Amino acid sequence: MATEDLNFRKQGMILASKLIANEYHEKAIPAIAGSRIFVELYKFFGSEDPFKKYKELSRKKAKIVVDTLKAKIKIDIETAIKLAILGNVIDFAVGFSPEDLEKQIEEMLDKPLYIDERDELIKEVRKAKQILYLTDNVGEHLFDKILIEEIKRTSNAEIYIAGKEKPIINDVTVEDLIRDGFEALGKVVSIGTQIVGVPLNEVSQEFREVYENSDVIIAKGQGNFETLSEVKDERIFFLLKAKCPAVARELKVPRGSLICKRNG
Amino acid sequence: MATEDLNFRKQGMILASKLIANEYHEKAIPAIAGSRIFVELYKFFGSEDPFKKYKELSRKKAKIVVDTLKAKIKIDIETAIKLAILGNVIDFAVGFSPEDLEKQIEEMLDKPLYIDERDELIKEVRKAKQILYLTDNVGEHLFDKILIEEIKRTSNAEIYIAGKEKPIINDVTVEDLIRDGFEALGKVVSIGTQIVGVPLNEVSQEFREVYENSDVIIAKGQGNFETLSEVKDERIFFLLKAKCPAVARELKVPRGSLICKRNG
Repeated sequence: MATEDLNFRKQGMILASKLIANEYHEKAIPAIAGSRIFVELYKFFGSEDPFKKYKELSRKKAKIVVDTLKAKIKIDIETAIKLAILGNVIDFAVGFSPEDLEKQIEEMLDKPLYIDERDELIKEVRKAKQILYLTDNVGEHLFDKILIEEIKRTSNAEIYIAGKEKPIINDVTVEDLIRDGFEALGKVVSIGTQIVGVPLNEVSQEFREVYENSDVIIAKGQGNFETLSEVKDERIFFLLKAKCPAVARELKVPRGSLICKRNG
Repeated sequence: MATEDLNFRKQGMILASKLIANEYHEKAIPAIAGSRIFVELYKFFGSEDPFKKYKELSRKKAKIVVDTLKAKIKIDIETAIKLAILGNVIDFAVGFSPEDLEKQIEEMLDKPLYIDERDELIKEVRKAKQILYLTDNVGEHLFDKILIEEIKRTSNAEIYIAGKEKPIINDVTVEDLIRDGFEALGKVVSIGTQIVGVPLNEVSQEFREVYENSDVIIAKGQGNFETLSEVKDERIFFLLKAKCPAVARELKVPRGSLICKRNG
């Protein structure tokens, strides 16, 4: 996406193959190793955000779908959690029309989650003094917004909503959150990184404090799972689709399963 | 496919990333570079043919489909060329039943080729004194057999059928050709390599002579295209589906197009 020039692309591929050989080792976490490779390639191509158009398209289509769903469906917190997970299922930037996407989501709404610990999450949300919401990709963040609105209605907790400091792949940045009005729902906080997920030893001091002081941490998508699943911490709830074989294996679920699962 | 051991797999992935970084350069041909990487991994895993089961399954399903088609359809050389290309479309080892595969092929038989130079190929086959047929993958080789039978019926040429010396991915080896009765149709010849396609500076002397002396060379699939498309040689006809973006771009056709095209 950074260039149409085939030779420049080829040079980028050769660089990428060397970066992968360097980053890929025994203990590598794909979200972190992958992000380092992307950042190097951004520099090589002289582009700060090659996914800009992709994200714009995702956001535009997701917005239409979310507006339609909100007008059509009665949304409570249970439904909102499911919608947030369904937002993780869909790649909004691919060829489907908003109408088709909306139909897909309505169909999936009727199906059960493979691991469904929504009751526990709702119970914890009601008790919490501070909640941290870790977003994933642009487009689905508008589905996260539905859930955060319901959390706000359900709980008196202080709500923090985290985004990345700088663009990395199609992840939600602090700028995206501000632009889409998340400050009306809670405090927007930067993780301080340009890395997919939450690499705890690289986050900002500010984020670290919010993280430590939260009673419930809602972690969307595979990147957050990859970086947080080995910390056994019961405050964390993972909302995601198990898209890749390794994540499905870790969760002991079939690939493609939809999950609301407490960590630990 | 070489092992179920996750740690062994991880070590193999780390090795693969280093092999890719070494093999991937400005002038690399994916078929050749890829084959070298596979051969190193075969050694690492201590397996001479990790695709053995995959190939067995492909062969078994393709055999059922071919037997049904031969009983149902009147086959002339035009249809046989198309069937050989359609054999290249299908991954026989994936989940579909032979019945579903047969239905798919019958549907595709009615559709035109994106580049259709069958008339020219048939004309050249009729005139030829020697014809060389370069096979591609196991499974589709039974579709090639239908075409070779028609060539034998149409032409008085000496027919050579080439396979790989040793197993590489799911390519047809000399052993596969002998096992499936190709010696009744022509002379089976080894390319002398364990490399996808026909890397002209690595082939055996015997193969080189057959190649030089043939009037028509029929090259199935992308691997043969990758290794022979830059030699401008009008004796070569490519039969393939343009599966990857780079091959489609070179051929100036949409990805997924079915092709019968003279080289040069």
